[in-house]
Formats: sequence, C-alpha cells, structure tokens
Amino acid sequence: MSLVATTCARSALRRVRLSGWKRSLSTIELDDRRKRVVVLGAGWAATSVLRGLSDKFQTVAISPRAYFVFTPLLASTSCGTLEPRTALESVRSLKPSEYFEASVQSIDFEKKEVLCLSPLQGWDPSKAFSVKYDKLVIAVGAHTQTFNIPGVREHAYFLKETKDAIKIRKRILGCFEEASLPSTSEERRRQLLHFCVVGGGPTGVEFSAELHDLIHDDLSRHYPSLIPLVSISLYDVAPRILSMFDSVLADYAANHFARQGIHVHTRRTVTRIDDGVVHLKEEGPVKCGMIVWSTGLDMTPLIKELKGVKKDHKAGRIMTDGYLHLLDSASEAEHPKVIPDVYAIGDCAVIEGDELPSTAQVASQQGAWLRRHLNRLAKYEAKAIAAPPKAQETSAETTAVDIDSKVGRGFRYHNILTLAYLGSWNAIAQRSKGHGIRGRIAWFLWRGAYMTKTISLRNKIRVPLLWLVRNPHK
Amino acid sequence: MSLVATTCARSALRRVRLSGWKRSLSTIELDDRRKRVVVLGAGWAATSVLRGLSDKFQTVAISPRAYFVFTPLLASTSCGTLEPRTALESVRSLKPSEYFEASVQSIDFEKKEVLCLSPLQGWDPSKAFSVKYDKLVIAVGAHTQTFNIPGVREHAYFLKETKDAIKIRKRILGCFEEASLPSTSEERRRQLLHFCVVGGGPTGVEFSAELHDLIHDDLSRHYPSLIPLVSISLYDVAPRILSMFDSVLADYAANHFARQGIHVHTRRTVTRIDDGVVHLKEEGPVKCGMIVWSTGLDMTPLIKELKGVKKDHKAGRIMTDGYLHLLDSASEAEHPKVIPDVYAIGDCAVIEGDELPSTAQVASQQGAWLRRHLNRLAKYEAKAIAAPPKAQETSAETTAVDIDSKVGRGFRYHNILTLAYLGSWNAIAQRSKGHGIRGRIAWFLWRGAYMTKTISLRNKIRVPLLWLVRNPHK
Repeated sequence: MSLVATTCARSALRRVRLSGWKRSLSTIELDDRRKRVVVLGAGWAATSVLRGLSDKFQTVAISPRAYFVFTPLLASTSCGTLEPRTALESVRSLKPSEYFEASVQSIDFEKKEVLCLSPLQGWDPSKAFSVKYDKLVIAVGAHTQTFNIPGVREHAYFLKETKDAIKIRKRILGCFEEASLPSTSEERRRQLLHFCVVGGGPTGVEFSAELHDLIHDDLSRHYPSLIPLVSISLYDVAPRILSMFDSVLADYAANHFARQGIHVHTRRTVTRIDDGVVHLKEEGPVKCGMIVWSTGLDMTPLIKELKGVKKDHKAGRIMTDGYLHLLDSASEAEHPKVIPDVYAIGDCAVIEGDELPSTAQVASQQGAWLRRHLNRLAKYEAKAIAAPPKAQETSAETTAVDIDSKVGRGFRYHNILTLAYLGSWNAIAQRSKGHGIRGRIAWFLWRGAYMTKTISLRNKIRVPLLWLVRNPHK
Repeated sequence: MSLVATTCARSALRRVRLSGWKRSLSTIELDDRRKRVVVLGAGWAATSVLRGLSDKFQTVAISPRAYFVFTPLLASTSCGTLEPRTALESVRSLKPSEYFEASVQSIDFEKKEVLCLSPLQGWDPSKAFSVKYDKLVIAVGAHTQTFNIPGVREHAYFLKETKDAIKIRKRILGCFEEASLPSTSEERRRQLLHFCVVGGGPTGVEFSAELHDLIHDDLSRHYPSLIPLVSISLYDVAPRILSMFDSVLADYAANHFARQGIHVHTRRTVTRIDDGVVHLKEEGPVKCGMIVWSTGLDMTPLIKELKGVKKDHKAGRIMTDGYLHLLDSASEAEHPKVIPDVYAIGDCAVIEGDELPSTAQVASQQGAWLRRHLNRLAKYEAKAIAAPPKAQETSAETTAVDIDSKVGRGFRYHNILTLAYLGSWNAIAQRSKGHGIRGRIAWFLWRGAYMTKTISLRNKIRVPLLWLVRNPHK
C-alpha cells in the first residue's frame, strides 16, 4: 500500500469509527453448507493458503492489491532481465469463492467479522462493508521500514512492488541518458552514474549484483564511454552484510563484490536523504544518481492498531503459538489463551519463542502448513458430525487447542536453502549452520530454486525463455 | 509528450528565446570526415530512416522518448494479450552515432542547427544545447487531437503511448473489481461495465474488438456473474465508421459489431467529458466506466511554431514536395522553392497535392524511401568529389532539386493492405478501391502483417509465443 493510500485509509478509518458499525452497508451472509475461511493479504503467505484449500470451505480473499507479487524476481525485473508482468499473478487465478479488492480496517473477534474499505471507492467510509468469518487468516505482510529517516519515502526507491521495479529501471536508463547529454558536466555525470543501495540483506545484495550485470553485460554496448564513470555502493549499519549467512560465505560475498568494483561500506548510519544525496553520519553527504532502499520491515496500520492481542516488543509483529493462533494479551504468560479461529502468518507475525527470518520461504511454508491444517480440521469436523463425541469431551475450554493437537503437529520450519545471487554467474547457498556452497554451483541452485518457485505453468515456460532473451535494449 | 511536459517545454522555450542563443552550452562539432544526418523523432517514420542508413553518415537521433512504440499492438497490449514491453524498442538499439533524449525547441535553417532541451534536465533553459546538421529529417509525429473538447485530457484514455495501454488495462480490471464489491449498487455496476470508445477509425475499432474478446474470452472466467451487465459503445461524428475502407467492408464491420453486441453510434458529437460521463449533443449525458479517445491528430508545439515553411490549412501539417523537402512559404505557388537539406515525413507532414492517410504504413514507407534516397545521395556526392562536374552544372540555384532527380525518383506510396481486426478471429482487408477481403482469411492476413512488421528477431519469436499464452490472469 502506498503512503498516500495508507494515509487516506487511516483518516477514513477514523471517520468510520466515529460513525460506528451501523454504516456498514452489507454483511455477506454465510454459505449455509460450508464454513467460511477469510484470508487477508496477497503475498507469499496468503497465496500459499489459498492454493489448494479444500472446497469444503467457502474461501474469501481480501487484499487492496489484486495480484501476487513474486518478490525475489524484482531485482531481475528492475534491471530488465525479466518482463515486469512475469513477477505478477492475479489473486483471482487462485480461484477463491470470492475476492474483494479492499483493505481490512478493523477486526471484531467477538462478532467474528472484518470491516473493509476499498481503494476503488476512494476509501469512502459510507461504502464500508463487513464480512463474517468462521476462520480468519491474517497475512497482510509488512511495509519497508524507513526508521522515520527524513527523505526516504520521497527520494529513495523501494524493491517491494512491481511498480517500484519499473520506476527503478526507468531511473537507471534516465541516469545514463542524462549523462549522455552534451550539456551535462563531468561532475554531474559521475554523480548520475553512482548508484547507492542501503541495506545489506539478500534483497539489497542481489539487487547490487543484478545492477552490476546489467551495466557491464548490457548497457556497456550502448554507453561504452560512460562505463568507466559508473560506481555502485552498498551501505549497511551492521558490521557485515548478509548476516543470516555463515561468516565464511558472507566474507566470500564481500570479497566477490570488491573484485567486481561494488563498494561495500558496513557500520554506516544514514541520517537523511535528499534528492540525489545520501547523508551518512560517518562521512557526510554522498552524491548519487539513485538510492535504492532495502532495509527492515514496518507493520501495516491494521497490525499497529490491532488491540487485545500479544505482539513482540521489537517490531510490533503479532505473536502466535506453534499452531499459528493469535494470543490473547490479557492471558497470563504461563497459560496463554488463544483467540479462537484466527491465525497470523508471514511477515506480520512471529512464533513465540521461535523467531524465524522474514523471508518468502518462511511465509510460504507457514501458508502451506496452515492450508493442510485447515483441510485436516475440516475432515475432522465432518467426522465429528457423523459420530458425535461424548459430552465430557466438548467443553468450550478445551475445543480449539485440543482439536488442533488431535489433527496434527504444530508448524515446523524446514530450511531448504538460503540463497543469494552475487552477479557474474556467482552465488552463495547455505542449508544450515556450517553447511555452505559458493560459486558457480550455488548459482545453478539459485536459478533452479526460482524455476520451481515460479508458480504457474505459463511462467514456468516464460521465465527461462525470457532469461535466454535477456536484453533490455532489443 | 504528455500535456505537462508540453507546457513545461513551452514556457522553457519562451525563456530560451528571451535570452537568445548565447545560452547554448555546447555545439557538437561536426565529424570532419562524414556528413551528419539529424533525425527528430522515434516513431515509425524516424526509425525507418535510422534502420540501415549508410555509415557514410554520422547519424544523430533526437527524441524526448528513448524508445520506439510499436503502436498498432497497443490495442492488444492494453487488453493484456501482449506484454507491455513487447510494443517497445529502444532507439539506441538502432545504433545511431549519437542519441539525445531531448526535444527540439526551434530550428535555424540558415545556421543549419537545432536547439534542444531535455526533460531529464527538467527542461532547464540554462542547459539548452544546439546540434548542427548537414541533413535534417523532421519526423516528430503528432499528438491526439482533442478538438479542445473540455475534459478529454483529464478524463479520457488515449491509445498513443505504452503507459496509456497499461493505464487502460488497469482501469478495465479496476471497473470489474469495483463492480464485484458488495457495497457497489446495481446502477453503479452497470455504469462501471459500460465502456465507451470515441473515434471510429482503425484504432478505435480494433480496440473495441480486442476489448470484446478480452471480456468474453478471458474475464468471463473470473467474473461470470458480471458479463451480462457489460456493454461497449463506439461513437463517431461521421455517418459511418472506418471511412478509409470501401463501404461494403465498412458495413460488414458494423454488422459484425452489432452481432457481437458492440453498439456503433454514428453521427454523434461529444460536447464535454466528465469523470465517468460522456456528454453527447444528440442524447445528453451517457454514464460509463471508461472513455477511450482515439480521434484525429494535433500538431506538436515545434510544428505549430515553425516559421517560414508552407503548411496545410486544415491540420497545420508541414507541406513537402515529392522528394519530401520542406517548402519555403515565401516562394510562389508555381515555382516552389525548397528549404535545402531538410525533410519532413510521417504524421507531421503532407505531400502537396497527394494527401495520404496518417498511418504507420505511410510513415514507414516514407522513412524507408528517405533512407534509400539519402544513401544514394551519399554515393552520388562521393562520385562527384572523385570526378568533379563542369563549372556550369554547380550553380547554387540548381543543386538541391536537380541532384535529387538525378539520383532517383520521388516518393510513391504502395498500398500493401489496409487491415482492421474486428474481434472473434474476424477482420477486413483492402488492397485498393473495390478489392476487399473479409472474415477469417482477412484475420490471418492481419496477424501475418503484424508478424512481419514486428521488427527485431527477439520480438519475432516472442510475439507469437505471447499470443499463444495470451491470458491476462494466469
């Protein structure tokens, strides 16, 4: 959600609250025969739930974005290796029973319903509508964290949405074109061709690598005289980049970057961003043509304003138990009480006592586990109706968690491989602590992982084809 | 060029004029060994000149748009049949000696130089630069004509640039999504799903046909309950649509549309456009979800403000002789004097006494002829230097036109085929007056024509592939 949209949504929300729930125009009635699963979001976590949920449920998807953004490809997209739309899949293609292009403003856990406003109706509070649920999955993801550093929202480029990637691509070519004009000074030329990336996580690192490849493989043919003026700088506040990798692999990456001429600056603090200038606490203003921002996560307004549920102190994420249930903030730490039939997964959530990285891999594994779990619950309940249990087993206290443990084990994360592309057919891969691969073989793994993760058959055919014909200028 | 850009350019121009030419920062010096051909524009006409111009010339391309838009595919693109970027090719991929992303503000025919401002430098007049030419090709195209009807620029969608196509696609899906919301009234639903097209030329007709196909072939799977509410209306001021086709074929098209449920309204005058409303003189306000505007052509500021050259009274286009030379407006009608070494082709020009339609076919044939003509001139001049002609043959009076007629004949238009797609695998094709084809065979011709006109090898492979996988939602 863009900044403007967020602001609109917030002020609309305030108005909705003032007028109460009575303005809600329509409450969609439940399908008599089927229980309803409402899924909020359209990212890795939400789409993994939707993909293959039993048709014993009526599924309702709600998201202000009508399509799923295949995020790890964005680095490729912005550099023109892949067509922008390859990174998209419509939520409707996952065939939910209903889909609403709307944003949930608040959740009523008592009444079991969510209140929605749509950007298509200009966030008009008189058009608010509520949707009832039997099971609710909160998978709304997160925004890019700017740490309230002035100028980031105005002047930096993000790597979250497809439109960001298109903007970045346009800006890179714009920098080269402006540098080609006869009335551009030598100093301005050097500024335009200095590209800054803030954030040394996998996204920032892969973007730097793709940018390096784009410039040296593709743009060098059209702007040969400008290539010697190009420089790429990567800044991070931590003492080293790629902190989720073993230090051997992270050092390998840093050395590989140094050989390629990508300058890695660690222990740097950004204090402000102006148009074309990054201000660093350590070395003052640094001029550049483009600033790409790829640091941590910030919660959405819905999560920030959600009351009565446990959240983690650091990032404000929703805390869940091992079955991904929300926890009642009023309950005691030793005897946590869950909020019945509500789950939170992906970047907006964290499992109590088991902090996992905020990656697409974790989100999609959580989504897939929850889908299987809900399907098992549906089967269990169908059986329970056919052969009702004895009276003492059905007290309200025990139902939710006990049934969960009856139908299967809680969520467990399987770290398949953590991968990062380093440019020039080079990558690093790590399965678990101490087990790493680097170089060309890791690169094959990296490409292979994208092949299998790229979802539809159409994309399975098109992505490798587009890789073959990669060329931003022809 | 967008409206904002045009306005900026104009006010910048005024400032440049006030301060005179002295602000010009850099005049690129001529390559001593080669003559310089400067080509203004990046459309069908300009790219046809650039594609294969002899390397005896130093070629300089100047256009505020760095890429060539393959316009006839836009109808397909906006409906999602083709990926947006398929319709683009970078001007740099045509390998001019130099390319500047800039707009020409004025031309000095005496000094043989053009004054440029770049949108990348915010049209800053202090960064103006001039470029000298030996031969100048004006191929800047035209804007969409709005006839100063209020609200067209603000509320209607055009079919000129790729970004227009992306906007249209987004709007179509937005209309269907808003109509899917539970709080949208039945009346609003009908309005949202009424699509209006103004202009019954080939572009408007093909867009209507593609929109019909998109809705009935693709969107019907995701929005089955909404399809009965959809309607498409095509308005034109003339008594019939497709006036460049024989009346038999035009009537066939109108009947085919009627059978498909596309309502063709001829003899209609649009008086105003508001957000979601077309005001017609004949029947008052008509509510709709989207208005696509595809009427005639309007000249760019450069052409409008060009002094000393003959223009046609109706549209303000530059008038040329049969060799596509500009004509001096001071010369008498019987003895027209050409402006030496300056040519005008494509939508911004018209040949005196031989009015051709403003189509991509005419523009690219003119560009190709001019390229061959310039190449022949280069050969002729090389020979002339090797064996200088006698003194009486080289008087200044005779040079330009006489040499032209020595190296070859003037431009002649070959009407290959005029084609229009009608939807549902149906098309009409016409070679010359009275020779028409319609139906499925014409459709094969239509697809075939795009195959051969789609230029690069990469696109030759990709366009049919994308047609095979056409599906906006998967």
